[in-house]
Amino acid sequence: MKRKSTAIVGTGLIGGSLAIRLHEMKLSNRLIGVESNPIHAQEAVKMELIDEILPLDQAIDQSEVVILAIPVNALVDLLPRVLDRVKNQIVLDLGSTKSALVESVANHPHRGRYVASHPMWGTEFSGPTAAIKNAFEGKAVILCDSDHSDSDALEWVRHMYEKIGMRILEMNAIDHDLHAAYVSHISHITSFALANTVLEKEKEERAIFEMASAGFESTVRLAKSNPDTWVPILIQNRNQIMDVLNEHIQQLKQFRQVLSNSDTEGLQKLIRSANSIRRVLESGQ
Amino acid sequence: MKRKSTAIVGTGLIGGSLAIRLHEMKLSNRLIGVESNPIHAQEAVKMELIDEILPLDQAIDQSEVVILAIPVNALVDLLPRVLDRVKNQIVLDLGSTKSALVESVANHPHRGRYVASHPMWGTEFSGPTAAIKNAFEGKAVILCDSDHSDSDALEWVRHMYEKIGMRILEMNAIDHDLHAAYVSHISHITSFALANTVLEKEKEERAIFEMASAGFESTVRLAKSNPDTWVPILIQNRNQIMDVLNEHIQQLKQFRQVLSNSDTEGLQKLIRSANSIRRVLESGQ
Repeated sequence: MKRKSTAIVGTGLIGGSLAIRLHEMKLSNRLIGVESNPIHAQEAVKMELIDEILPLDQAIDQSEVVILAIPVNALVDLLPRVLDRVKNQIVLDLGSTKSALVESVANHPHRGRYVASHPMWGTEFSGPTAAIKNAFEGKAVILCDSDHSDSDALEWVRHMYEKIGMRILEMNAIDHDLHAAYVSHISHITSFALANTVLEKEKEERAIFEMASAGFESTVRLAKSNPDTWVPILIQNRNQIMDVLNEHIQQLKQFRQVLSNSDTEGLQKLIRSANSIRRVLESGQ
Repeated sequence: MKRKSTAIVGTGLIGGSLAIRLHEMKLSNRLIGVESNPIHAQEAVKMELIDEILPLDQAIDQSEVVILAIPVNALVDLLPRVLDRVKNQIVLDLGSTKSALVESVANHPHRGRYVASHPMWGTEFSGPTAAIKNAFEGKAVILCDSDHSDSDALEWVRHMYEKIGMRILEMNAIDHDLHAAYVSHISHITSFALANTVLEKEKEERAIFEMASAGFESTVRLAKSNPDTWVPILIQNRNQIMDVLNEHIQQLKQFRQVLSNSDTEGLQKLIRSANSIRRVLESGQ
């Protein structure tokens, strides 16, 4: 497939890492960045993530593909404006929530040019300097409500994600947000809350630094994540997340209950049940 | 320092990985395994983690160093019996809790031969086949109540841990158990509870398998940990753990509160506070 001129709106961790892949895999012949943060704009050019920075309207006009890689609250505002301007361009977003976004353009005359996607990759870092090579590879990408996208747009987006090594799944936006709450969003909350717990209880911060094991670091890793990314995700998907958070608090209370009774057998049962996550993660059964 | 003949009681993940290091670093000229599980005993010999398996008493009699690498409930029973038998051997344990253990031998006539230690390394796997090379390296090891150990015993244990690349910290057993609850034990509970939460809510296990991101996998990794190891740790350190678990449930309720009010600012504040775990983990300030 012919290389396309591409505008990337938001040149941070996600947009920047995708830019690297689009170039590596010969999917783009020109990478135009759109970036509201002037420091990030400078960094993205200096790191050669993109060829140049242009204002949004010019970037849209000069591109065949427009990729939106900004926080989900900004996406809801921006997507309709981008669709207002496009003629035949392909527009896709990389946001972690999908329902509010597809609703925001449900009746838009150019709705067909838009493909809603969520590549399930990220790190706890942010900004252009966090962009890395080989991102996205081997991970899942969810395409949502794709029957509302034009077939040429969908075909290119599928081609692009396959080329960068992702496994494509399809589902509707509502199901996506439900599963994402379970498999991604709640992990962030538990990690944020664990960090706050330890910072609250452990007054000797030196002890955390000195004793922190690989186990602690992996459990608390996501707590380093950027609030500018995560506040909008958690707010947009709050109904689903509150539901799973309620369950999580109940599960923790069960641990508290068996511990307070020194109930060895009950504790064993809870841990054995947790162990079956291994089966699910490793075999997909 | 002269290589020592060494008995390792428990040839699983921890004992087996240490056996590899003792050999690699020329700390031992003979590695005797003591193993109650006959399948593990066979595996440990076959993998050449140890040279041979002997019954406990023979292993003690034929060794200069006796290393106890078994679950902490079994340790509390076994340690006094081992000290009953030793003459001049050095005895150390690698358990994740320390108070109950040092208490169990507080008035033992051979108390001086024993060094209480907790190398802060592990994985979510178990048994001899989980033993790996380069374990322990770069991690912290805590020596507890070392003023109750004979100086030659302490000297060799320090030498051994330094040789395998660990950073030695010293504190009393009570402080150890408190810090360990904060920095290690609570992480396991959050991870177990997260696994149970997702398994309870996500009825489509296929979706977990397909959508699970690196973030989810790192947060839930510890949930694969062996109950035979972790039930005794959590029960022995239950008072400290219940206290930090109560705080953790409160922290999660704060997230629930700000989410239920769609309180963007409150959520931002909670996440920014969690972000400071980065400063603590990375700089030790």
